[in-house]
Amino acid sequence: MGDLLGVAVLGAGHMGADHIRRLDRVVNGARVAAVADPDTERAKEATAGIDGVSVHAEAEAALAAPGVNAVLIASPGPAHEEALLAAFARGLPVLCEKPLVPDSAGALRVVEAEVRLGRRLTQTGFMRRYDTEYARLKSLLDGDRLGRPLMLHCTHRNVSSPPGFTSAMLINSSVSHEIDAARWLLGQELTAVTVLRPGSSAHAPAGLVDPQFVVFETSGGALVDVEVFVNCGFGYQVRCEAVCERGGARIGEEHSMVVTTAGDARSEVPQDYLVRFANAYDREVQAWVDATRRGRVTGPGAWDGYAASVVAEAGVRALESGARTSVEQAPRPELYDGAHR
Amino acid sequence: MGDLLGVAVLGAGHMGADHIRRLDRVVNGARVAAVADPDTERAKEATAGIDGVSVHAEAEAALAAPGVNAVLIASPGPAHEEALLAAFARGLPVLCEKPLVPDSAGALRVVEAEVRLGRRLTQTGFMRRYDTEYARLKSLLDGDRLGRPLMLHCTHRNVSSPPGFTSAMLINSSVSHEIDAARWLLGQELTAVTVLRPGSSAHAPAGLVDPQFVVFETSGGALVDVEVFVNCGFGYQVRCEAVCERGGARIGEEHSMVVTTAGDARSEVPQDYLVRFANAYDREVQAWVDATRRGRVTGPGAWDGYAASVVAEAGVRALESGARTSVEQAPRPELYDGAHR
Amino acid sequence: MGDLLGVAVLGAGHMGADHIRRLDRVVNGARVAAVADPDTERAKEATAGIDGVSVHAEAEAALAAPGVNAVLIASPGPAHEEALLAAFARGLPVLCEKPLVPDSAGALRVVEAEVRLGRRLTQTGFMRRYDTEYARLKSLLDGDRLGRPLMLHCTHRNVSSPPGFTSAMLINSSVSHEIDAARWLLGQELTAVTVLRPGSSAHAPAGLVDPQFVVFETSGGALVDVEVFVNCGFGYQVRCEAVCERGGARIGEEHSMVVTTAGDARSEVPQDYLVRFANAYDREVQAWVDATRRGRVTGPGAWDGYAASVVAEAGVRALESGARTSVEQAPRPELYDGAHR
Amino acid sequence: MGDLLGVAVLGAGHMGADHIRRLDRVVNGARVAAVADPDTERAKEATAGIDGVSVHAEAEAALAAPGVNAVLIASPGPAHEEALLAAFARGLPVLCEKPLVPDSAGALRVVEAEVRLGRRLTQTGFMRRYDTEYARLKSLLDGDRLGRPLMLHCTHRNVSSPPGFTSAMLINSSVSHEIDAARWLLGQELTAVTVLRPGSSAHAPAGLVDPQFVVFETSGGALVDVEVFVNCGFGYQVRCEAVCERGGARIGEEHSMVVTTAGDARSEVPQDYLVRFANAYDREVQAWVDATRRGRVTGPGAWDGYAASVVAEAGVRALESGARTSVEQAPRPELYDGAHR
Repeated sequence: MGDLLGVAVLGAGHMGADHIRRLDRVVNGARVAAVADPDTERAKEATAGIDGVSVHAEAEAALAAPGVNAVLIASPGPAHEEALLAAFARGLPVLCEKPLVPDSAGALRVVEAEVRLGRRLTQTGFMRRYDTEYARLKSLLDGDRLGRPLMLHCTHRNVSSPPGFTSAMLINSSVSHEIDAARWLLGQELTAVTVLRPGSSAHAPAGLVDPQFVVFETSGGALVDVEVFVNCGFGYQVRCEAVCERGGARIGEEHSMVVTTAGDARSEVPQDYLVRFANAYDREVQAWVDATRRGRVTGPGAWDGYAASVVAEAGVRALESGARTSVEQAPRPELYDGAHR
Repeated sequence: MGDLLGVAVLGAGHMGADHIRRLDRVVNGARVAAVADPDTERAKEATAGIDGVSVHAEAEAALAAPGVNAVLIASPGPAHEEALLAAFARGLPVLCEKPLVPDSAGALRVVEAEVRLGRRLTQTGFMRRYDTEYARLKSLLDGDRLGRPLMLHCTHRNVSSPPGFTSAMLINSSVSHEIDAARWLLGQELTAVTVLRPGSSAHAPAGLVDPQFVVFETSGGALVDVEVFVNCGFGYQVRCEAVCERGGARIGEEHSMVVTTAGDARSEVPQDYLVRFANAYDREVQAWVDATRRGRVTGPGAWDGYAASVVAEAGVRALESGARTSVEQAPRPELYDGAHR
Repeated sequence: MGDLLGVAVLGAGHMGADHIRRLDRVVNGARVAAVADPDTERAKEATAGIDGVSVHAEAEAALAAPGVNAVLIASPGPAHEEALLAAFARGLPVLCEKPLVPDSAGALRVVEAEVRLGRRLTQTGFMRRYDTEYARLKSLLDGDRLGRPLMLHCTHRNVSSPPGFTSAMLINSSVSHEIDAARWLLGQELTAVTVLRPGSSAHAPAGLVDPQFVVFETSGGALVDVEVFVNCGFGYQVRCEAVCERGGARIGEEHSMVVTTAGDARSEVPQDYLVRFANAYDREVQAWVDATRRGRVTGPGAWDGYAASVVAEAGVRALESGARTSVEQAPRPELYDGAHR
Repeated sequence: MGDLLGVAVLGAGHMGADHIRRLDRVVNGARVAAVADPDTERAKEATAGIDGVSVHAEAEAALAAPGVNAVLIASPGPAHEEALLAAFARGLPVLCEKPLVPDSAGALRVVEAEVRLGRRLTQTGFMRRYDTEYARLKSLLDGDRLGRPLMLHCTHRNVSSPPGFTSAMLINSSVSHEIDAARWLLGQELTAVTVLRPGSSAHAPAGLVDPQFVVFETSGGALVDVEVFVNCGFGYQVRCEAVCERGGARIGEEHSMVVTTAGDARSEVPQDYLVRFANAYDREVQAWVDATRRGRVTGPGAWDGYAASVVAEAGVRALESGARTSVEQAPRPELYDGAHR
């Protein structure tokens, strides 16, 4: 497929460094051409041993570096909008980690800029679409076997939340994955949201509303409920059960090595999303590299990033008000018609 | 344990006939002494081959028949209140199939009559408390291992609904089992209810709101959500997952014979509650017979029947209004303090 | 079905006391009429609170006691032959705990005595035939769905072996259950046996060959392999997988409450056969009582007890020799044609 | 890590073409530099769209092509020995699909040639060592949690066998995977083998002994039993259960999307090894490329290929004779001490 794709990676923190490693050692057809991070020492560490990579303090400088054909944005969310617009200005395809932009107004500006450009450049980093089990469930729902989906029951559990994690972040950081997954699996928009509060766990930090039980209504009349529990203590567990008119399907049960000792048969529950979704990240970036080298954009786009933001914002309002809250979404530009679902 | 318990069975329909068979052939320590059914032919059929049983058109006559020490009420719900009061008048212990009385006002009158009597005579037929898996979950939740319960996720699915089944019956007939199970498992009252409507299945009869998604709040700050879907098409499936501060537990997955043919590994899903809960019915009636012969009442009582009615009525109002609906329960009489939970 | 069956129970040890409790409190249609145990104190304890039961030191006295219509033999194996012959002399139906008689020569004498009698009186206590899962597997294999059985893979594990358990007892006590189950499931005789010795576990008592891997050949050309491991440490686990021409089926996986804590999803493994097969024992004795009251014998008979003895003896020889060992079985008397399979 | 590894792929058939695709599009750090196949048209098709690749009829010519740093042998087994020796002559690292060489005498000549060379160049294509579940089981067995392994119960089932598949090939082609997996998981050699024959399935081609039940003894006193059934009809199923002194573990149950329709809960069973082990192949080749670029050999080596051949040959003799057959292995050269286990 010709030359390697030269990627500028913006951000060399936890996620950025992981993507640098992935582009360098796992993914086929790309190379890390430039890295930008205000902490250039961190950027140098993350690129140690990689040939032909330049390190920059400024995103703009990395985009302008020689050999750069595409951009992977892994900087903090607030920096995304400027970076996306800069990439658009240079006509560079982008893989942007979620959130596209933390607030929906900013996300909408990105959508509008892409629409003015007249062509899609952005893939948003919703990696669950690349997970084998989710893909299998999507394929099943797209087929005729189970009939119309009526409900999705989702579970999203983490062992514990990082410092500074707020009640709103359970929705706009954690549940945003379910928001995208539900839109994609169902091919429907989420139109309203209610957030219920079971009593918070004694193991959650003081003041954190955890767990939450979030119920979405969809444009096709389905319900999507999500238990989000980020201090569940026992593991990272992401499950999804679709209930349809002629049957159901569920994914995300424990993995299949069963260990039997001392009166129990145990299946290990992964402790971390990097374990659970390791393959999904690899497949996501490989798919982006492959499509980009062919001049295509195939994954979830800027519109999907915007939609997730709008729904999450309604969710946060619903958490605060305790009331059912409508989702008001801007009209979808034609550019996104027929986009990859 | 001395003489056999002579039981008058009221009602010889589907459920009544099954209890007659159970008392005659399965349960130890009891005998069918009298049966009442307006259709005395049906009652004769159901008692064919049983020695020493008298058949009556009127409940009152069966209660008065020689050898009767206890009553099992399996007549239609509207006949329950009168039968219960008649049994109380004779001081006869009762096992009353659910619902105790179809409306909460009637159920409360039964409670008040029992309170006036000054002693408990009634066991209400919530057989799930006698299911092995539910009992195991109860025992786990009562122990210290998992910590405080935060949520119960429940599923209640039937292959198809019988003729005449109404949208309200999804709550006051089907979900009433989850209402009792949740109260019992958590040792808490249900204080509010919201009913959400996913689009109804094309396989549900016209006009039936099916499935429904019912969310209860509890006196201890937990949430109980129930998917009830009585035309799911594929099987009778009752599941319950408890999510607690230190872990979780789930029951009701498919049973354990796995058959592998033609590309699939299959576990059979039972088609019917009489299959899924066959043992629970046997154990319920045996427990009632054993306790009654010892002069005790141990199972769910009249108060539990009343509480289920009140919550179900609030649920039906919530279904109609679409709004969160509080449950207003009468104060619990002292007679029911320390009753079997 | 008329009067209660008056049962004489021979033996009031662990198993006998459990059967006395079962006949008194669980099983319908029978009563304990007499109990014999050389330790009459033990017999009195086991019958405390039961009306109308007589206690005897001698089996013969119990058989002759008033009200005795049938016999349940739960005395030590060496006492079985004499007890069976005494029951035959009185024409009493018998449920005899396994082994029918410890040695095949004695078992054959019992068979011959029953043949001389000209009618079947004996049910042998192979309770797995009454286990729900085994029954389901049997029904599946008897149907047309999976085709001809080619292999059974069996597992039989105990937490630890009782004092005095010998290497031969892994076969003639533990594997004897698989011997009967395989004969019954396949409707075939076992014709040869090889016993392989993995290195013994450090947790087995010194000198005990544990685990063993036993491979049977059958009259229909199938193989039956059994891992027997009586000091496995973690639980009581009985599994059976049938491999057939058109598919397979397996039973005996862990039960279905899954508990999630601290990084694992756990299913409890029962620690004891009385837990795993509690229902099977209840159903076995109920089936025997019901059939006996109707004057019938329906379960595994004396011939099945004999066959299990012959195969187990060949197995013990195979364990000692390390060689494939043929099973030499006496010709089956016509009395056992068409017996319950 | 510097320049891309230029790989000569020998063989452009089913497996070769798949490896060409993998090196070109999936694996990072390598490129297809040359391909050899007697059918050069097939080789051209398999390399369509790949830049800088030369196509050859002769293996030798491909090895000599410019830019070739390493060799992947995917030609038919009989061609392996010559190709390996040619690669050794040029000092090229090799990834050789199994079997290393079809007969153990040839495999031993390869071992001896590598020993003369004084350094390891060969990785043998036992891809199961790269499967996530096998790796997890290996890691568990290497740790202290379960204690000494006593038995491995293995299952290896295919939907149907390809034309020309012989009874010996069930062992030397199918079971050879279990032979390597058992040696690797246990860190022990297989010392004897017995092959039992259940009656062959009516769905197996006439004359094919299928299924077979193969029992290996190991140098550490463990047993390894393998059900191999290549016309099982329902799926590709590879399972392994380790039984140890303090517990057990099993892998290879059905995957985790459960679909519920029409009375069953179904898990899909993969139909093909390319589906089941897709990731393992990717990881195997990536690991080989990574190690080779670092000048190392890390996977299963020539000695493992030889060992598998010797054991498989004993297995085929055991199949023919029906008797327990010892495995006579040449002494292991020091070169293979401390090799990757």
